[in-house]
Parts: sequence; C-alpha cells; structure tokens
Amino acid sequence: MNSSAYQWPDGKKAAAIVSIDFDGPSPYLWATRERPTTALGELELRRFGPRQGVHRLLELFASFDLRISAYVPGAVADAHPDVLAAMLEAGHEVAIHGYMHEKVSELNTEELRAVLEKSARALEKVGAERPFGYRSPSWELTAEALGVLAEFGIAYDSSLMGYDHPYVMSGIVEVPVQWQLDDAIFYRYVPGSNWPPVTPGEVISGWKTDLEGAKRFGSLFMLTMHPWLSGRAGRTLALASLFDEYRSDDSIWWTTAREVAEYHRLTYGDMHDEQPRIGEI
Amino acid sequence: MNSSAYQWPDGKKAAAIVSIDFDGPSPYLWATRERPTTALGELELRRFGPRQGVHRLLELFASFDLRISAYVPGAVADAHPDVLAAMLEAGHEVAIHGYMHEKVSELNTEELRAVLEKSARALEKVGAERPFGYRSPSWELTAEALGVLAEFGIAYDSSLMGYDHPYVMSGIVEVPVQWQLDDAIFYRYVPGSNWPPVTPGEVISGWKTDLEGAKRFGSLFMLTMHPWLSGRAGRTLALASLFDEYRSDDSIWWTTAREVAEYHRLTYGDMHDEQPRIGEI
Amino acid sequence: MNSSAYQWPDGKKAAAIVSIDFDGPSPYLWATRERPTTALGELELRRFGPRQGVHRLLELFASFDLRISAYVPGAVADAHPDVLAAMLEAGHEVAIHGYMHEKVSELNTEELRAVLEKSARALEKVGAERPFGYRSPSWELTAEALGVLAEFGIAYDSSLMGYDHPYVMSGIVEVPVQWQLDDAIFYRYVPGSNWPPVTPGEVISGWKTDLEGAKRFGSLFMLTMHPWLSGRAGRTLALASLFDEYRSDDSIWWTTAREVAEYHRLTYGDMHDEQPRIGEI
Amino acid sequence: MNSSAYQWPDGKKAAAIVSIDFDGPSPYLWATRERPTTALGELELRRFGPRQGVHRLLELFASFDLRISAYVPGAVADAHPDVLAAMLEAGHEVAIHGYMHEKVSELNTEELRAVLEKSARALEKVGAERPFGYRSPSWELTAEALGVLAEFGIAYDSSLMGYDHPYVMSGIVEVPVQWQLDDAIFYRYVPGSNWPPVTPGEVISGWKTDLEGAKRFGSLFMLTMHPWLSGRAGRTLALASLFDEYRSDDSIWWTTAREVAEYHRLTYGDMHDEQPRIGEI
Repeated sequence: MNSSAYQWPDGKKAAAIVSIDFDGPSPYLWATRERPTTALGELELRRFGPRQGVHRLLELFASFDLRISAYVPGAVADAHPDVLAAMLEAGHEVAIHGYMHEKVSELNTEELRAVLEKSARALEKVGAERPFGYRSPSWELTAEALGVLAEFGIAYDSSLMGYDHPYVMSGIVEVPVQWQLDDAIFYRYVPGSNWPPVTPGEVISGWKTDLEGAKRFGSLFMLTMHPWLSGRAGRTLALASLFDEYRSDDSIWWTTAREVAEYHRLTYGDMHDEQPRIGEI
Repeated sequence: MNSSAYQWPDGKKAAAIVSIDFDGPSPYLWATRERPTTALGELELRRFGPRQGVHRLLELFASFDLRISAYVPGAVADAHPDVLAAMLEAGHEVAIHGYMHEKVSELNTEELRAVLEKSARALEKVGAERPFGYRSPSWELTAEALGVLAEFGIAYDSSLMGYDHPYVMSGIVEVPVQWQLDDAIFYRYVPGSNWPPVTPGEVISGWKTDLEGAKRFGSLFMLTMHPWLSGRAGRTLALASLFDEYRSDDSIWWTTAREVAEYHRLTYGDMHDEQPRIGEI
Repeated sequence: MNSSAYQWPDGKKAAAIVSIDFDGPSPYLWATRERPTTALGELELRRFGPRQGVHRLLELFASFDLRISAYVPGAVADAHPDVLAAMLEAGHEVAIHGYMHEKVSELNTEELRAVLEKSARALEKVGAERPFGYRSPSWELTAEALGVLAEFGIAYDSSLMGYDHPYVMSGIVEVPVQWQLDDAIFYRYVPGSNWPPVTPGEVISGWKTDLEGAKRFGSLFMLTMHPWLSGRAGRTLALASLFDEYRSDDSIWWTTAREVAEYHRLTYGDMHDEQPRIGEI
Repeated sequence: MNSSAYQWPDGKKAAAIVSIDFDGPSPYLWATRERPTTALGELELRRFGPRQGVHRLLELFASFDLRISAYVPGAVADAHPDVLAAMLEAGHEVAIHGYMHEKVSELNTEELRAVLEKSARALEKVGAERPFGYRSPSWELTAEALGVLAEFGIAYDSSLMGYDHPYVMSGIVEVPVQWQLDDAIFYRYVPGSNWPPVTPGEVISGWKTDLEGAKRFGSLFMLTMHPWLSGRAGRTLALASLFDEYRSDDSIWWTTAREVAEYHRLTYGDMHDEQPRIGEI
C-alpha cells in the first residue's frame, strides 16, 4: 500500500473525524488513587470539562451539523447521564474509554476484562448500544490487551498511529489517531507542566495544514478534543474557524470513527493485517 | 447552567478583569526559606517588579482609566507602603495573597489562620479595608483551607478554574482565574526553567483570541500580570495594544474582582454551590 | 578560513542536501533492549515511517527531481529491501547509520567494528556499494570511534557541527549537520516528551530563513528528515512549499552528501584538518 | 525613580548595547571538568563559535558600523589571540567573563580572586587594558563576589536584572542584562535539551517589540549573542534585519556597556545604590 493509495467512498479525497475524550477529572483521580491529595486546583480545572466545556463544544458541533465520536470513561457517564443522553440524542457516537481512565499497561488481563465490562454497562445505562468502539486511555495498548479487546467484541479500536488511514491490527480494525491532532499536547497546562500552552491561533494553523495534507495524501484527519481544554472560550472560537473553512468542503468525508471502521471492514476486509511483533524491527 | 447562559449586567457580553499578583521576591524567599542561598540573580530579577515593573503597569492602567485588582503578599505591602498607597489612591482593589506567598497546602489550619490575619493587618496598615478578597499563592486551595477562608470572612476567592464565570464553592464566591490568561506561564524564565519565554506578540495574540471568545460565550476574561514579568518594556507595550483594541469596547464590562463577586452574590446568590468532593468524579 | 570563504563549484552561492535518517523503530528497540516493554503505542508510531512516511517523502523528492542521502540502519534495510531497492533505483545515496541505531558511545571498539561490518553487509545485500558514507546514530562520535571509522574506510562522516561547510576531522571528510535543520527536534512527540511539536508552518519558516542564510554566507544547508515524523501529511505538504520556492533556485547546488564530500576532498584536500582535542579549549 | 524617568544623553529615548559572550567550548569544559567525556558532538557544536560564528557576527557588526561589548573567558582569549586582536582593532570593548567560564557560586573568595587576575592577564596579553568591565558566567553573582569585584577594581558589572537601566549595586555600576534579550535561552539546543530552538523570525520579532518598548519607556536594550548560536547562518541573517530597521534610528543611543557605565557614574553618581539584602523582601 503506497503513501496515497487509500480509497475513500464517493470519490472523497480525505476523511475527517472529530472526536472528544470526555474524561472529566478521571485521569487525575486514577493517577492519584494511591497518593490521595486534598488539593482542589487541578480537580476544579478538569471539572470545567463536564460543567461547561463539553456543552460549548456540543453546541459548536450542532451549529456545524457535525456528528462526532465521543470516548467516555464509564465513571463520567455514570456522573453525567444527562450529557450522555444529549450526545446520543444528537446522533453522536459514544464509545468506551475505560471506567476511570485506567492505563491498560497497569492492568492485568482479568482487570482489563472487568474494566471493559463495567465501562460497557455504564454506557448502556445511559442508552448506548453494543458493540462499542474503543479508545484506550492515554492511547496505549499492549499485545495482550488486543486479545482481550477482540474477545470482548469491540467494534474497532482508535488508539494507535501505525498508518494515517484505517488498518487492521490483530484482527481488529484500527481507526488511527495522531499526536499532532490531539489538543492536549498543545493546551494542557497543569502545575508542574513542562511547557506553556500554545496559542489557539498557532494550534489551528497547524491543524489546517494537516487537513490540507490529508486532502493531498488521502489520509484520515482524526481530531481529538478534551472538553476541559478545548472548551475554553478562545480555543472553542478558534476551532470554529477550522469548521468555517472546511465543514462544507465537498472533498472531505466528515464522519465518525464507527462509520470509518465499518467502511474499512466492508471495503478492505482483513487486507494488511498487522501484528504487534513486539521487540521486532 | 449551560455553556453560555451567564448573564452580565447592562447587557454586557463579557466581563474583563485586569489583576496583578504583586509578589516581589516573596515566592523565591518562601521557596528558599529552608535552604538559604547567597545567589543574587533571581532575587534581583524579581525585585525589578516593585522597583520598576509595577510603576510601569500602574501608569499603563491609569492611561486607560482601568481600575484593577491587586493581590499583594503582606510582606510586599510592608516593604512598599508608598506603592500600596498609590494603588488605593487610584481606586484599585487591594486583596490578600498570603504574607510571604506561603503555599496553602504547606500550612496547617492554625498556620493558615495566622497568615491570613497577618496579611490582613499589613493591608490595613497601608489603608485598605476589610473584608478583603483573596487569591491563594500559586492558585492552589484545599477543602480545609476553604473552611478557614469562610471563617475568616473573605469577600470572595479568586484561585480556581471550575467555570469561566463566577460560581460558589463551599459558600464562597469564586471569581475564577485561567492558566492561559496568566502571564507567568508564558514569560517566567529563571535559571533552570523548562522553556524559553514566549514572545509578547504571540502571547497577546492568544489573549485577544480569548477575549473574543469571552464575548462570544459570555465568559469572564480574568487577566493576571506579574510586575516583574509583564513590567518589562516590550511586554508592557504589547499589553497596551490589547487595551488599545478592547478598552473602549462597549460590549465588555471592565471591572474588578470585588465588583464581579458582589454582582454574582446579588444576582445568583447560592445557586450552583459546588463542593470540593475530593477524590470523587 | 573566515565566515564566508567557502567556495562551491560553478559559482553556486550555497549547497543544499536533503537527507533522511530512515530509522523505523530501531532507536526505540535499541533503547528498550534491556528493559523489554509490551507497549505498542510508540512502536506503531515509529512504524508509520517504513509503512507510509518514507513512500510519501520519496514521491515528494521524485516530483522535485531531487536525489537525497539516506542513512539507513542495517536492520531496517534487512526488513525493507523493497524500499531500499527503490531508493537506489531512484539514484539516492544509501549510507550507514548503525545496524540497530546503536549509540557509538555505548559501544567499545570491537563492538563498533562489528556493527559497521554488519551494517555494510546489510546495505550491500540490497544492492548498495562500498565505500559507504556514515552518519552516527544520535549524531554522536568519540575520538576513538573516528579511528575505527577511518580504518573501516568510510567515504565521509555526517554527524558533527563544527563548521557549516565541509571540513576534515582526523583525516575524515565531515559533511556537517545542524540541529535546527533536523526535523526531529521540532516534530518528535512521544509519551513523556518535554515539549509539544512545533507547527509545520513555523518549522518551514525557520528552514527558509536558514536557506536564505546559507545563500548569504555560502554555507551548507543540510536538512534531515525522519520518515515517521516528516512523512505525516501536513508536514510533507509544508516541506513541499520549501522545494516549491527553492528547488529551481540556480544559486543553490542541490546535491548529496557523497558528492559534497568528494568535492571537498578534491578541492580542499586535507586543509583545515581538525583534531578532537578532547578536554581542550 | 519611576518607571520611565531615566535620562539618556542628547535627548535619546533609549540606549542599545550589542554584546557577545564569546565562550567557545569553555562552559562545557568547565561543566565536565570532573566527569571527563570522550563525546565530540557538543564540543564541535560549541567550537563553531570561534571557528565561524564569531567572524560572521563581527563582519555583520562592521557592516553596520557597530561597536560592541565582548565578554571573553581568558582561556578563549589565550586560544584565539587573532580574533581578540581583530576585536580590539575594530574598536570593540573586551571585558572579563571568567577564565574557563567558572560559576561564581562554585568558587570561594580566594578562587574568585585568582580567576579574575588570570582572566585580566589573558585579556592584557592580547592588548586590552585595565580596568575591565565584568560579566559573570551564567549571569550569577553573590554578595561576597560583589566585594571581591569591587576590590579587584572592575569598571562595571553586567550580570544582573534589577532595573532595565543602569544602577549601582554595592558601589559597583550595574549595566543590566535581560533574559529575553539573550539568544541562548531561545537558540541553545544540545542533546538532552528541554525545548527545541525558537525560529529566528519569532526571536527577532520579540526583540523588535523589546526595542520599541525601550524607546517608549526609556530603558536599556542589552542584547546578548553567543557566536556558536547566533553565528548560524539563518540567525545572523535575521539579526541583520533588526539592525536594518533600527541602526539608523536617531532616537536610540547605540553604544557599549563601558560607555553606558561611564555615563551613569558621571550623571547619577551613587544615587540609588542597591544592596544585596540576601533573604530580605
């Protein structure tokens, strides 16, 4: 498969998926589970997501008639059933992202199975239906976890970066992410951070270059937003400028990860099934 | 409360507060209190604030007829009574920011009480009056500290980021800050720093995007300056360009944190009182 | 030799070399050889290089009729003989870059010799011919390694930065690199990274300034791309804009490292032979 | 002294000094003196300074008829007498910067005295004359070191940042530096660095803002270049654009640190003599 050979449906030049990792404070709660803190700063900072950020983003998506893919830890679904109901009502995809944003590499097989089941039940409780798509917390997987995910029957995975178009990994359709299309690595500033946030204008400028690149090379533009970060007023406004420019571009297939996974399975089947080959070149 | 439902007075689209954390060298002195250093570099760097930076900023604010909110460690007020008197004379708000910029999480309840009382007395000595607003050093609070602050009778707190409009936390009105509107995370370079300072043009460009966002989403634009950083010539000049563009924008309520807190208490009362819920989702 | 005295052939003002360090996952496999990991994220991220990135870049170079210098670890050549064959077919230079991207400073003399021999055989197997050029993994050399390289008979080295035109170091022609012309220090984001990737527009803007500088001061513009980084769609597109602007600039000698090394040896001989002088000013 | 009260001669609005810290590899040699390394990479990288960078910068200064202040470790003067002779011939100021870039805080009083004497003798050997100006390696001083410097009879110090115009510290005239006008914090990338270099366009844009600020607020624009960093082709070219725009601006006093120190001593005497007041607010 050469660099620009992927065929999108209806002659589209590229596919674009807008996704959110709707974490609320779950990554912080998971990270501090063994060394409890009484500090409020970072907790409140992250709670901005479910309180305001997610509404602002959902309203923005609605105004552009965009259906997105939302990866939601079960604990967040349990805590915000109204937000989840609104997402489903609006036609968005809701998919698994752990229960408390547990890092896959820190779970054994049994624990991962239990987390998946608990996460799925939480999503079902708010009205979503199996089979669910999956995105791993912190975008990390292991060869073992792939086996558990296959056995659990996920619809697809969206955590890896081995291609910039859909592919198959150990029999599972992969709808790949890309670091430079993740808002968090540019915007996340918390006490002790290693860098200051990049300005929205500069971030969006980079994303526009990537979207132009996707059109040129036929790739998948998978954007990932975190409501506690991109839901800040200036960033949401800047994001709107991206949609202003590209939402009505007919050469782009604006869609969801689930639909891309289905398209890939139907069109390409198991062609190019990659294996983990841990430790190999 | 949805993402853009906050109502500002007189049909204003957004509120904008300019604040300074007038620390002088107090954070450095606090941080090195147990491992004294004979180094002069960082001390002189930070002393630029009370010597020049604060005057430059105050003159800038005066030229734009802006009243600001100044958070001043008691030790700085004791050392620079003339600067504090000039601030009060100009109609600026002066509020508590610790005595020696003590981190709240490193104080027990008794120590925090003592620090608050000592800080308040220092501010009273230069002519300010109770009840005082409060901003925690390093913008960090704990559930316990909220109790002490309430008992002490602060007028409001301005340290957290759970919404981008005023809210209530444990009965205290919160006038929230935002990391990306803090000059320090972009401009602070000291030996051993993890990143180079961002250029003034880029920083101001980000802030203008945020102010446009505040107008679009009805939020609070809370800008925070540190005189030893934003008082540098090029940065002050760049800041002036923000005021040039927006100071006379009639859709923005340029005001102080105290006035925003009073407005919120009067208009919204205890609606949406959030609790710390430490360790919960 | 003063700052702008280097003479390029045919009255050219500057020389420009496009090079790739075609590492695939070898640096990661080398770094984790003693603490094996089951994590897939970074492995897949780096495998994007041989799967897609390298093809995208090679097609770009072809479209601009550019012959480049490719530094290829032997293990990557062994794993991707078809890619290597295509490179040679297109007239690109293929040169040594370790077998598994082994850091020279972590090898003793015997080990370095063995690695060089194994690397050379891997390149010969895909059709390349001795003597090979050399670029050290991570651009690090030692005085001892220089002796081994000379004894092994490399055609030139391209790992150091002591001048921005060719020079001689311990009898070996050095075709120097430059940090700010390496894509990795701007684009490489992996979990745990210390900074977010710089946007392609900003990176290319810097490189254009450098190329203008090379024309002004007669220096060598040695660009280095990593397929897993610069092969991402937006970055490849941005790189194209550099070639659009400068590929047909007659004042620039677009060439390969091998040709620059040959030119230097013929024209300057051993003039200005530098010695390591470890520990000396 | 308020924020814009400093009076420059002849009605100038601001003063601008171009300085270089001509370190060569001395900081690296000092830092590794107790853990010798055989690595060549960083050594060669820094040697670019005396080999090419310094010539390129000196030619640039000559083309703009600029006399600068050069701070030169004695070991560098000993190793490059021809460069030093050329500097003096061109009318530049040559001043003390340690012998091997020794950090003042790591020397006791006796050692500092010895270093100063050795440094001065090295500068005299190439033709410079006492009394010398002084800039501390890494821009760090101690209260004790100030005493040694005064006793040694330096003409002025240029290491601190307590004002952005000249002042007096412990009886010594201070010609202050500013971090954001130091090229190193933007351009220095060595293996293990915490951030990628900022592009020349962005750095120069920041400096232009600072120079405009200096004109507005009457301050001293003290630019510091390191030849191994700013001597790279693109950066030198970008620096030229700053001089293109401002060198013939009549409102700016382009001068040397020594002349600014003399002006300050004559005009302001010991007014505003600051004391170290270590550990005090």
